[in-house]
Amino acid sequence: MKAFQLQSPGVAELTDVDVPEPGPGEVLLKVSGAGVCHSDLHILHADAWAPLPMTIGHEVCGHVASTGTGVTGWDDGDGALAYLCWGCGKCRTCASGYENYCEAFGRGIVPGPGLGYQGAMAEYLIVPARFLVPLGDLDPVDSAPLTDAGLTPYHAVNMAREALVAKANAVVIGVGGLGHMGVQILAATTGSRIIAVDLDEAKLAHATELGAAETVKSDEHAAARILDLTGGRGAEVVFDFVGAQPTLELAASVIAPHGRIVLVGLAEGSLDFRAGSPPAALPWGAGIVKPYGGTRADLHDVIALASRGAISVTVERHPLSEVKTAFDRLQLGQVAGRAVLVP
Amino acid sequence: MKAFQLQSPGVAELTDVDVPEPGPGEVLLKVSGAGVCHSDLHILHADAWAPLPMTIGHEVCGHVASTGTGVTGWDDGDGALAYLCWGCGKCRTCASGYENYCEAFGRGIVPGPGLGYQGAMAEYLIVPARFLVPLGDLDPVDSAPLTDAGLTPYHAVNMAREALVAKANAVVIGVGGLGHMGVQILAATTGSRIIAVDLDEAKLAHATELGAAETVKSDEHAAARILDLTGGRGAEVVFDFVGAQPTLELAASVIAPHGRIVLVGLAEGSLDFRAGSPPAALPWGAGIVKPYGGTRADLHDVIALASRGAISVTVERHPLSEVKTAFDRLQLGQVAGRAVLVP
Amino acid sequence: MKAFQLQSPGVAELTDVDVPEPGPGEVLLKVSGAGVCHSDLHILHADAWAPLPMTIGHEVCGHVASTGTGVTGWDDGDGALAYLCWGCGKCRTCASGYENYCEAFGRGIVPGPGLGYQGAMAEYLIVPARFLVPLGDLDPVDSAPLTDAGLTPYHAVNMAREALVAKANAVVIGVGGLGHMGVQILAATTGSRIIAVDLDEAKLAHATELGAAETVKSDEHAAARILDLTGGRGAEVVFDFVGAQPTLELAASVIAPHGRIVLVGLAEGSLDFRAGSPPAALPWGAGIVKPYGGTRADLHDVIALASRGAISVTVERHPLSEVKTAFDRLQLGQVAGRAVLVP
Amino acid sequence: MKAFQLQSPGVAELTDVDVPEPGPGEVLLKVSGAGVCHSDLHILHADAWAPLPMTIGHEVCGHVASTGTGVTGWDDGDGALAYLCWGCGKCRTCASGYENYCEAFGRGIVPGPGLGYQGAMAEYLIVPARFLVPLGDLDPVDSAPLTDAGLTPYHAVNMAREALVAKANAVVIGVGGLGHMGVQILAATTGSRIIAVDLDEAKLAHATELGAAETVKSDEHAAARILDLTGGRGAEVVFDFVGAQPTLELAASVIAPHGRIVLVGLAEGSLDFRAGSPPAALPWGAGIVKPYGGTRADLHDVIALASRGAISVTVERHPLSEVKTAFDRLQLGQVAGRAVLVP
Repeated sequence: MKAFQLQSPGVAELTDVDVPEPGPGEVLLKVSGAGVCHSDLHILHADAWAPLPMTIGHEVCGHVASTGTGVTGWDDGDGALAYLCWGCGKCRTCASGYENYCEAFGRGIVPGPGLGYQGAMAEYLIVPARFLVPLGDLDPVDSAPLTDAGLTPYHAVNMAREALVAKANAVVIGVGGLGHMGVQILAATTGSRIIAVDLDEAKLAHATELGAAETVKSDEHAAARILDLTGGRGAEVVFDFVGAQPTLELAASVIAPHGRIVLVGLAEGSLDFRAGSPPAALPWGAGIVKPYGGTRADLHDVIALASRGAISVTVERHPLSEVKTAFDRLQLGQVAGRAVLVP
Repeated sequence: MKAFQLQSPGVAELTDVDVPEPGPGEVLLKVSGAGVCHSDLHILHADAWAPLPMTIGHEVCGHVASTGTGVTGWDDGDGALAYLCWGCGKCRTCASGYENYCEAFGRGIVPGPGLGYQGAMAEYLIVPARFLVPLGDLDPVDSAPLTDAGLTPYHAVNMAREALVAKANAVVIGVGGLGHMGVQILAATTGSRIIAVDLDEAKLAHATELGAAETVKSDEHAAARILDLTGGRGAEVVFDFVGAQPTLELAASVIAPHGRIVLVGLAEGSLDFRAGSPPAALPWGAGIVKPYGGTRADLHDVIALASRGAISVTVERHPLSEVKTAFDRLQLGQVAGRAVLVP
Repeated sequence: MKAFQLQSPGVAELTDVDVPEPGPGEVLLKVSGAGVCHSDLHILHADAWAPLPMTIGHEVCGHVASTGTGVTGWDDGDGALAYLCWGCGKCRTCASGYENYCEAFGRGIVPGPGLGYQGAMAEYLIVPARFLVPLGDLDPVDSAPLTDAGLTPYHAVNMAREALVAKANAVVIGVGGLGHMGVQILAATTGSRIIAVDLDEAKLAHATELGAAETVKSDEHAAARILDLTGGRGAEVVFDFVGAQPTLELAASVIAPHGRIVLVGLAEGSLDFRAGSPPAALPWGAGIVKPYGGTRADLHDVIALASRGAISVTVERHPLSEVKTAFDRLQLGQVAGRAVLVP
Repeated sequence: MKAFQLQSPGVAELTDVDVPEPGPGEVLLKVSGAGVCHSDLHILHADAWAPLPMTIGHEVCGHVASTGTGVTGWDDGDGALAYLCWGCGKCRTCASGYENYCEAFGRGIVPGPGLGYQGAMAEYLIVPARFLVPLGDLDPVDSAPLTDAGLTPYHAVNMAREALVAKANAVVIGVGGLGHMGVQILAATTGSRIIAVDLDEAKLAHATELGAAETVKSDEHAAARILDLTGGRGAEVVFDFVGAQPTLELAASVIAPHGRIVLVGLAEGSLDFRAGSPPAALPWGAGIVKPYGGTRADLHDVIALASRGAISVTVERHPLSEVKTAFDRLQLGQVAGRAVLVP
């Protein structure tokens, strides 16, 4: 079969490989859609951190092609989405549902398909059965991004859900790929007032359609504008889907006392924790948290929302053979929403 | 009456002032004990941030001397502790019990006695009735520090209580004034395993008596030692009662994925939020929060614990006339536990 | 001024009384709207449980006419809604924001305007300042019911909010007065799937407009239909806004294991707690809770939602002079939504 | 091997059966201890609800004897406790950690070893690998009861943990088998004040040693005594480890407004939900919940507490060959703590 494999840092090719065989407890999935994510660009160029060659692609939708011994509850042809974080399932953290922070991987990241294991940009993929969630009536191509572009912002919202009361303000910095899902999830699952922040007017207009009550251009007046919109106190919750030093400082400048910053973007910043409340330090009672991925329960919820039409991903499709075109378009910022590869 | 007043930044004197009169809803409290806190040292030398002259002293215990109109439920002679954070009582944040983050003060700190209002290092003090909590059977001198040295660590523990399950490790950095109360509160109200960290062997020995399961000398091996004690993963919760750059980095180095750092000390540090998990950045899923004071409900709980003997403050008493001696001893690190002034 | 006073059990008249004077900490409110609630019918005919004569009316909107000593933050003419549950403000329960369960009233109900104190069916009303919440831009007549018909279902939803995840089913039994507010609040603040249950087809149609995904006629097939809609397992949350023996049994029959029944109606039922899971007993892990009123923070949230148009009450207005007509219409079931008296 | 099998309702014998073979993902455990539980008495005499013959015994400790294909992380000889509730691992409820309320079993109970599957009163037992939790340094005989007599009260405490603040009163009705573990767990993991209730003075004395602050004889004065101890308001949390009509009524009589009853016993009662607060109905804001078993994360926590000596089970040992003696002693109330069978 064809698989888009990372062979050495910076070198990825569509290659012929054998169709794998599912072992005990595993399922062979015929891929129907594999999302292309910004983090795949990082992976292509990162220093080797996983055994290579590795097929990339961590947003996975497909149908059961065959099952290994001991697998129950899945029949050939069943549609499924694959969960992102392949925890051990045994530690206390996994047992409490947080497989995305599995203890078996110490202080490091929890691997998944295309992120340590062979991924989805191929005709077939092996997935341990317990990481599959039924697809239901969802589209088997367009739904692939739900497993990351849906899951990650849903988990981010859950990380601050307690503070997202009806009177709260929720600032979303960056309403592109993950951020525009974040706006939809906030609108669908909380009563808070959504304030969207972006450099791009078109994305802000889109955010308004998706449920944002206010939009703020991301320029040097952004902090003042958000403070003005929130009576000078700031927002109870800020989601930073960008995670650069300027957005992190913006987040700190507009988070309310006792508020929470959820830092989703691949952050390259630092933050002051001095006493008092100077503009760029956290006010009293505020906090910041850096989530990764989401839980399997979160994925169930995301699928439920998508099934009822409460959230949706804008998708452009490419055949797997044109994987490089998809990556080029992503790198050039030409993808509206999410590109999905169809083997 | 005598009052220890800050007259200009750096200048504080024991002065004769008039006994104040309680207005509507207010109580005149005859001070029985006024705690001396490290933050009082800061206040003495800080730039003027409140109208001066201001009597300092924010750890307050006393007895009702007289009541203003509209006060119900308090009789002359009743013993009371005064709550630290005098919120407006009307905003949503106060209404939900978090007066320590009251919206009426915007992004700034919530004032209290000796912290914006006239404080407790005097013979009498005015307190709005709703900020008094009954003293019960507690000692009217030794209990004064409960209102800050008890309240603040209790609130800090509450900020992470969800993560303080029986299998969790709780690191306490700095087991002096507030920290040794933190150890007691963790031992009395959670089932987690307490790991105390300090420079001072005597304080570590004391922490063991108070309930710490492990102690770690705060040196260059501290991070490695804590990681070793926690199977390489780090602790689910870290309380930093110091808040300097080295302790903040230690906290980041030993917090587990999905863990929470509670930064209580008057921090003078900054923290990296880069992707991945290099030694001095937060691991995935981890967060940090910077609490201030506590809630009135927290104070009720602290009093309940002290009344049952589950927590206690070590106290040395000084007459109000010797306030400067008390401050000198504090500055020189000679106070074991807390100094309390007795007018 | 005119006031609709309960003079003895069953006897209520529009009477001339003196305009009261606000004491320390109190506000005299000129009533702009006083909602008429089903529970007022109960009160009219109940055995005396409060000092009579008592002006009834607990859904209160008005403007500040004058203020007593010690009141700050309110000026004459300011619009305000009055909070329902006049707790002591001092006990731990009040301090934690749950004034609706204030400890000062032991095991009994917490009184409020028209519920122990002089109420709103009059030209003026005394309210302690801390129970007022700013009206903002809301209509001063139509908003009165928010203080109970909005508050009570909001609090009920909060009592089960943890279980109201995106994949959850939320059954609402009785979608009239409070229930139709419950549907709106669920739709506005949660991502759960709403299943409305009622005897009245018109109310079910209305519930669909307000956000219910499914409707079920309340007949002998209702339980089977709900189980069918929920894959045989039942709903994660059931709100019973009726509270009669048949609806309580319906709730028990369709609550899922680990689910929660929130019993809002003035219940006249009992429930089995036998082992196992016979049809009319609770399944394992399930629970039932009986909320009363709501918190002041809840009222802030309700006002925020109403201000943004996310929820609204259907109102018919009557002059105070026609109070008996309003009660007659209510008793005959002729009021769509809520009747509000205008003095 | 020998196995104590239920052959038909009421008929159980020690029988020779084949040692089973572990399938994919399964582990063969050599039993080192099998606890004897009151619910085993029920099972012996219940109508057939599971395929017979079934080896009973659901409190399981042992060592890995062999592993099926696909099992990783377990080596022969490793000590392990077996988790009680064998959920599907795939549904949203299992994914969120609540396997004890698994959706695969509809509205019914989740089966486990000796509770639907072949149990522990035998020389060997098959356990799916993911239901094993490492034994660590714990005793392989005495620890067996932790899997139910430890797990169930721990989960019960978790069900009310939010309300178990330092100022709360926690009533424990029935301080025998599960209840005396409940007292220890409350003392080890909460700061609440424990009030133990029992018919048996010896058990009350034991409860005091284990951490109860107050004891109340379970007679006709019990409710009055508990109300007296709690200032007339009642207790914030009541654990009913008996679950008969009189204890359920006692619980309702002494639960505070906004309190929570956790009904652990195999209840045979019903409860009134009438308006207001008559003695035997729930006060406003109060609730009742009926937990079953516990989660795998709970079991990790129980093991952590036992490993640190914070909780322990009193055990009497019997060889498996004397299983009938053990049951006789249990039925006659002669077992102090828990009987454990050693094959």
